[in-house]
Amino acid sequence: MTQSIRIGIVGYGNLGRGVETAIQKNPDMSLVGVFTRRAPDQLDTVDAATPVFSVADLNDFQDKIDVLILCGGSKDDLPKQTPEYAALFNTVDSFDTHAKIPEFYAAVDAAAAPAKKTALISVGWDPGLFSLNRLYAEAVLPDGETYTFWGKGLSQGHSDAVRRVEGVKAGVQYTLPSEKAMAEVRTGSRPTLATRDKHTRECYVVLEEGADAAVVEQAIKTMPNYFDEYETTVHFIDEDTLQREHQNMPHGGFVIRSGNTRPEHNQVIEYGLQLGDNPGFTSSVLVAYARAAYRMNQQGQYGAKTVFDVAPGLLSIKSPEQLRKEML
Amino acid sequence: MTQSIRIGIVGYGNLGRGVETAIQKNPDMSLVGVFTRRAPDQLDTVDAATPVFSVADLNDFQDKIDVLILCGGSKDDLPKQTPEYAALFNTVDSFDTHAKIPEFYAAVDAAAAPAKKTALISVGWDPGLFSLNRLYAEAVLPDGETYTFWGKGLSQGHSDAVRRVEGVKAGVQYTLPSEKAMAEVRTGSRPTLATRDKHTRECYVVLEEGADAAVVEQAIKTMPNYFDEYETTVHFIDEDTLQREHQNMPHGGFVIRSGNTRPEHNQVIEYGLQLGDNPGFTSSVLVAYARAAYRMNQQGQYGAKTVFDVAPGLLSIKSPEQLRKEML
Repeated sequence: MTQSIRIGIVGYGNLGRGVETAIQKNPDMSLVGVFTRRAPDQLDTVDAATPVFSVADLNDFQDKIDVLILCGGSKDDLPKQTPEYAALFNTVDSFDTHAKIPEFYAAVDAAAAPAKKTALISVGWDPGLFSLNRLYAEAVLPDGETYTFWGKGLSQGHSDAVRRVEGVKAGVQYTLPSEKAMAEVRTGSRPTLATRDKHTRECYVVLEEGADAAVVEQAIKTMPNYFDEYETTVHFIDEDTLQREHQNMPHGGFVIRSGNTRPEHNQVIEYGLQLGDNPGFTSSVLVAYARAAYRMNQQGQYGAKTVFDVAPGLLSIKSPEQLRKEML
Repeated sequence: MTQSIRIGIVGYGNLGRGVETAIQKNPDMSLVGVFTRRAPDQLDTVDAATPVFSVADLNDFQDKIDVLILCGGSKDDLPKQTPEYAALFNTVDSFDTHAKIPEFYAAVDAAAAPAKKTALISVGWDPGLFSLNRLYAEAVLPDGETYTFWGKGLSQGHSDAVRRVEGVKAGVQYTLPSEKAMAEVRTGSRPTLATRDKHTRECYVVLEEGADAAVVEQAIKTMPNYFDEYETTVHFIDEDTLQREHQNMPHGGFVIRSGNTRPEHNQVIEYGLQLGDNPGFTSSVLVAYARAAYRMNQQGQYGAKTVFDVAPGLLSIKSPEQLRKEML
């Protein structure tokens, strides 16, 4: 390695903290600093030595940063930030509003391409590694069906819904892949499955004093849109247990394609993630793709790009020779 | 699609037959013909309409073929054929002698690069899709350990070894991933496992008349190198059962990486293949990569390449716009 890849982080929530940590596991990278909208001296970084700057000063860092990792949210931050910063820096973001990816891509490409910058959008695991596996599996097994299952994962939206029920003091909701549906898919029978057939829901609830468990359970299980169409289990726990056992942010899931090369030959491809910490894993993916963004920019691949455009070798710290020798 | 990608097949064993079948599932491709060292009029193709030519006539097809898929063996055919044909055509092959890949790559690159041809080497599932998953998983989880398990798969070499035992009339051997070892890896404990710890062996044997089952079983289980270090099970069956239940060529396996983004956060990535027919699947992978070889050549990416060099989007029949909209 001749020179370290210099990274800047914009936004400092769970994702930004994860990126800060992940960079330390990649010896060919160095962290220039975290850029925040908050007062820089009030930011409590994972590593106290990490420099913190105001996001307003980013313009001064154009020569000091190779790739900017944008750690804001998909709803309010990235639609504005990525086009803005992709005109000045190579960027990586985790924009994950699937339906809006085409318009997001267009806006980012319009900013990055004329500036000769490389902007990798929608990086993470879904969109991201799951998307890659959907693509690879479909390309190598054109006659087949792909199924995506999510979980076991903490769902923020469904946890909020549970907490809005009268009598609920606190609680969380996990989405689980249905074992029955997964087993069916793995047989190669290519069943037709709606999202509700593929998942079950599990709630852990702390009751308000005097609340009736049966009434609360009924209210959750029959809640329209959120729970009524799913197989839902409700567990009642005390506050200590909630604190002790339900503070992590696990997630994951499966992409399974079942297809045929001849009618009598079933072929099944399965990809699965079992993540102890969802934002920490996404951050780690962002950092690997920052390496690719840097290299693609050096190769003259400008504009908005997705994981589909990234040759896998560009992600690795190892040289092409080493990869062929050790990993092929 | 403006124009179909024109494919030629060299070599017509299980792999060549699989490629012939797979092309029919890819509407943007057409098969120019099969090229054989045998007498062309004696070749019995899957589709009777498939043209068959002598391999000696290949030179006349330089303007008629976009990609040549080389379906010969890694031991004797490909080390000679790929460098020879990569000077004349874009090629895809499934060279799978892992230890010799660097020298094979060098020989193919020396032929293809000056001729401005693109030669994708070592395509299939291992090397191939498994290699990709080893690379992706290591890049996104640098702090971790990767494990490759093979099976359930028919092993030709071990089946031959079983059949050489005195008293054995016929038989087959399957290699299976050890459920115990896989479970251990999935916990995130990063155990140290030798190949023999990760696999078990299962034999299905038809005895010669008058042979002693106990003696045969003992001879198999204690055979040095092949079985003595493995947990081996021997099943005795009759010839009809062997014909009925053991004529398929299943294979597959798992690539599992277990790592950490923080010491307290285990993350597990798992990729698995469950193949009803090993050569048919490999053929299908070769055909998808033929599409990529054609596109890379049009982009000016010349020389020897591996799956690590291929941007995933190049494998798909879908346009980049469609991929972003439907699969990201």
